[in-house]
Amino acid sequence: MPLMRHNPIFFLYCPVYFDQKKVQGFLWIIDKKLLPYFDRNLKTDFMREISKFALKLSEGAGISELMKDLGIGLASAREKGLDLSLMGGGNPAHIPSVEAIFQEIWKDLGSDSNSINQILGDYSNPQGDDSIREQLASYLSVQLKSDISSENIAFTLGSQSAFFLLFNSFAGEFPHGRFKKVLLPITPEYIGYADQGIREDMFTSLPPIVETVSDHRFFYLPDMNRVEDRLKQGDIGAICLSRPTNPSGNVIPWNYIIKMKELASRHSIPFILDNAYGYPFPNILFREPKIQWDPEMIHVLSLSKLGLPGLRTGIIVAKKEIASRISEMTAVMNLAPGNIGPKFLSKLLENDLMNKISRNMIQPYYQEKSIQVQSIIDSLFQKAGIDYTMHESHGALFLWVRFPYHKKNSQDIYKEAKNQGLFLIPGDWFFPGLEETFSHRNECIRLTYSRNLEEVSKGIEILTKILS
Amino acid sequence: MPLMRHNPIFFLYCPVYFDQKKVQGFLWIIDKKLLPYFDRNLKTDFMREISKFALKLSEGAGISELMKDLGIGLASAREKGLDLSLMGGGNPAHIPSVEAIFQEIWKDLGSDSNSINQILGDYSNPQGDDSIREQLASYLSVQLKSDISSENIAFTLGSQSAFFLLFNSFAGEFPHGRFKKVLLPITPEYIGYADQGIREDMFTSLPPIVETVSDHRFFYLPDMNRVEDRLKQGDIGAICLSRPTNPSGNVIPWNYIIKMKELASRHSIPFILDNAYGYPFPNILFREPKIQWDPEMIHVLSLSKLGLPGLRTGIIVAKKEIASRISEMTAVMNLAPGNIGPKFLSKLLENDLMNKISRNMIQPYYQEKSIQVQSIIDSLFQKAGIDYTMHESHGALFLWVRFPYHKKNSQDIYKEAKNQGLFLIPGDWFFPGLEETFSHRNECIRLTYSRNLEEVSKGIEILTKILS
Repeated sequence: MPLMRHNPIFFLYCPVYFDQKKVQGFLWIIDKKLLPYFDRNLKTDFMREISKFALKLSEGAGISELMKDLGIGLASAREKGLDLSLMGGGNPAHIPSVEAIFQEIWKDLGSDSNSINQILGDYSNPQGDDSIREQLASYLSVQLKSDISSENIAFTLGSQSAFFLLFNSFAGEFPHGRFKKVLLPITPEYIGYADQGIREDMFTSLPPIVETVSDHRFFYLPDMNRVEDRLKQGDIGAICLSRPTNPSGNVIPWNYIIKMKELASRHSIPFILDNAYGYPFPNILFREPKIQWDPEMIHVLSLSKLGLPGLRTGIIVAKKEIASRISEMTAVMNLAPGNIGPKFLSKLLENDLMNKISRNMIQPYYQEKSIQVQSIIDSLFQKAGIDYTMHESHGALFLWVRFPYHKKNSQDIYKEAKNQGLFLIPGDWFFPGLEETFSHRNECIRLTYSRNLEEVSKGIEILTKILS
Repeated sequence: MPLMRHNPIFFLYCPVYFDQKKVQGFLWIIDKKLLPYFDRNLKTDFMREISKFALKLSEGAGISELMKDLGIGLASAREKGLDLSLMGGGNPAHIPSVEAIFQEIWKDLGSDSNSINQILGDYSNPQGDDSIREQLASYLSVQLKSDISSENIAFTLGSQSAFFLLFNSFAGEFPHGRFKKVLLPITPEYIGYADQGIREDMFTSLPPIVETVSDHRFFYLPDMNRVEDRLKQGDIGAICLSRPTNPSGNVIPWNYIIKMKELASRHSIPFILDNAYGYPFPNILFREPKIQWDPEMIHVLSLSKLGLPGLRTGIIVAKKEIASRISEMTAVMNLAPGNIGPKFLSKLLENDLMNKISRNMIQPYYQEKSIQVQSIIDSLFQKAGIDYTMHESHGALFLWVRFPYHKKNSQDIYKEAKNQGLFLIPGDWFFPGLEETFSHRNECIRLTYSRNLEEVSKGIEILTKILS
């Protein structure tokens, strides 16, 4: 806009009276034609004041800052024409054999005009279609060795949205002025939880016990004594754990889960198990998948890591009272979950297709990838004499690599890698609510191993150079 | 569970000591085999304590209560074998010519395997796909006579979810202890807003001016002096209006909208226009569709009333800062919007298909239906000598009928109708935040006219009997 060329603007410094008080100010003398422009821009400053809710959810210290930084880095790397290794994201892999099945289901749904008209054109029941919930309940009753009915199930618009509802239902402000927190019994833990509280300080967490397996492998275990102690403070409203754990690829042994559930139950709070990568689907698990549901637990499942993140479909398996409350919140906030995700699920449950793809396609695909990428890391890092160790890969899409005595910390590594076209997530982000020091926090990075092997190899080469 | 037959239970009334205090209690003596059952049920009472957030969103006085009552009524009507007239819901009509186009798009999307793999298998950008937002921005720039860029657009998981984010961003608790409300400048207004505040008392509203057109027709207008006065109290964070208005079918004249927008702007607050039934799509408008966007307004659009509620796709058109903040909240709460809705939208925008279906199929379909149903009402009610009047039908799916001097109020009518298989919504629900008496509140009902003509006729016959 050629403001200065044709439309002179002057301003004078002068006293101005406002509410009978003298204030210093500028008097602007502008071309009348410009008034609408100024007027509009001066008046529509209504973003200057937003609620605590919006401030909390849109200015989180966590994800959004990182995402912006990644976005800028990506744009700049593309500008420089760098070969990119995108090992930071959480998108599931594109597995051709699985995609072929999804394409068939899509075609199948489209070929029955009554069914497709209903899928597109009718609002779902807020809890999700009754018959699909019944079908899922029968399937889960077998898989999770428990008596699950359709009333224990609620569909949500993705599991992220399920966690938003669960966390803010069991933590935050309670009647009579009480404030409760979600306890993450072991960190590192999923970055996406961190910003979900509508109030500050809704998460508290504990560092893990580190078990060394060999020179270059370790795994984490929850420190059960500390979990028990922390619960005694009486301010915990729920315990939540992802299994497999994002970012470490940990699968916490079932006896620990049982113990945690019992502790939760003793304090009359729910134990939430984030099953987004877990059993029975997508089954990105390379260890004993033992798992069971009972009414003292809330399981959260998702269709995303199966390869269907575009359908935004999450599933809560919980006591009836919780499932129905979650649905009431879904009704108020979203009217209803979508129809396509549940319909895909229903088709996948027919003829045992769900177990077939989870066990025979998805699980082997990721396991093979994980082994290959670990061996690339071992070979390149050891050749270069890098001091490293990594978490055993029990499941999920990530490798969690630690550089214990390196002079570069995880932020340094992140920045240098970004400048060379390798995108990864520095470990610092995965300790929501941890109030004490824990060395791994600044010594680890999360690498997504599920991209194609060429891209991953190139990324690990860059990493080797940075750390040598 | 045959509890009593094989497993004797006794209980004794006795004193029990708890924390060194004596409390009266029952001592239970039960069969050991029953312990797990009791144990489980006694311990998992963690729903007894839920947060203020959950209490507010799952125990709203509004929708969920009504929905439950409707659900029970429906089950009972079905049990009695009654012919049902479902004139309570907000589901869009199934219009075969439109559905045929949707089926084609579905097939089309499924036939390109690269495209379908991306739609199903990749997370969307939290604000929505860039190229689709650009395409939509070009379309809306023409339709809304304004300069709209992709940065002004954010996709959400349905417009209900957009309103949840907007209301709780511009009203509720603010920094420094301030509390703001959403002003609904005219009631009756959409029932779905009422429960969306995460805090109590987040809405305040005003009664309308009633303009009589003829013996049996009237329409509402906003009382602009009162709107202006109400804003002066300084506690309003946003103004929101649906156009066409659900439930009345009102289309507020554009000069009123301009005036309200100017008032909002003078108070540095946004003016939110709920366009879910409006222009340019789905265009369920039987009056001058004049509309324009500018940065002082937030327009909310939806694909639902076009006939795609199963896709959960809402659209916000707002200043860049607002669109980006909404997306950040979407990222935290939902990770991303879905892919299928935006992709359908994109296909509909190609070859001007969107305007073709909105103007040549959807608009005429509803207008014809509205005229037919009005004429059935006029004919049956007048024949029976019922004292009634109704809001002029300017758009949306509903007729708003008033029985000014009838001894039965809207709740009486609702209950009697329900018992005879006719489902409608009593008018009381459509006055969220109205703190004063307004006679229409208990004298009106909302009838969905978009069901098939036979069903609607049967419903109006029942209504005629109830009111005669």
